Amino acid sequence: MIKLKYHVFVCTSCRINGQQKGLCYSKDSVDIVQKFIEEIEDCELSGEVMITNTGCFGICEKGPVAVVYPEGVWYGNLTEEDVEKIVEQHLIQGVPVEELRI
Amino acid sequence: MIKLKYHVFVCTSCRINGQQKGLCYSKDSVDIVQKFIEEIEDCELSGEVMITNTGCFGICEKGPVAVVYPEGVWYGNLTEEDVEKIVEQHLIQGVPVEELRI
Repeated sequence: MIKLKYHVFVCTSCRINGQQKGLCYSKDSVDIVQKFIEEIEDCELSGEVMITNTGCFGICEKGPVAVVYPEGVWYGNLTEEDVEKIVEQHLIQGVPVEELRI
Repeated sequence: MIKLKYHVFVCTSCRINGQQKGLCYSKDSVDIVQKFIEEIEDCELSGEVMITNTGCFGICEKGPVAVVYPEGVWYGNLTEEDVEKIVEQHLIQGVPVEELRI
């Protein structure tokens, strides 16, 4: 049975018809996904943390958006620096980054 | 702050470069997403349950795949009938459907 410590979902505006248009995508959310993947590898968290890109969450004006489960903590307006903070503080230390929550 | 009772993620093999190729997609996972959306609407759960399509989870041979948070319950080899069962038993009654877990 699959058991992760954290599962991070990042909107990259991918549609079920295969198109990719949308605010998160236009706000460079693909760079946010790649930054998460790099940080997870650098911090050797690959076995316990999964990063998954998604379709629209419906809160495009707050993009780029990510949500971290199991807690269901939503983050918005993300930059690559914010990703570093989320990995260090939330995924390693277990403390959500309050100032980035939406 | 966003607060959902359940968040269901369904792989539709969408890639961050906008392509959509992969086993879940070829196994009609888009129909699975649409069945979830219909069921959620029919059961008037739209306010508390969100359905989101995703990129690859890396377990393509078990597709179509869905994962339900906050519990982190993984389901595989899904049919439209299985979706009805997951909505009724897991999302409404709160009991994961053991025989569909992977």
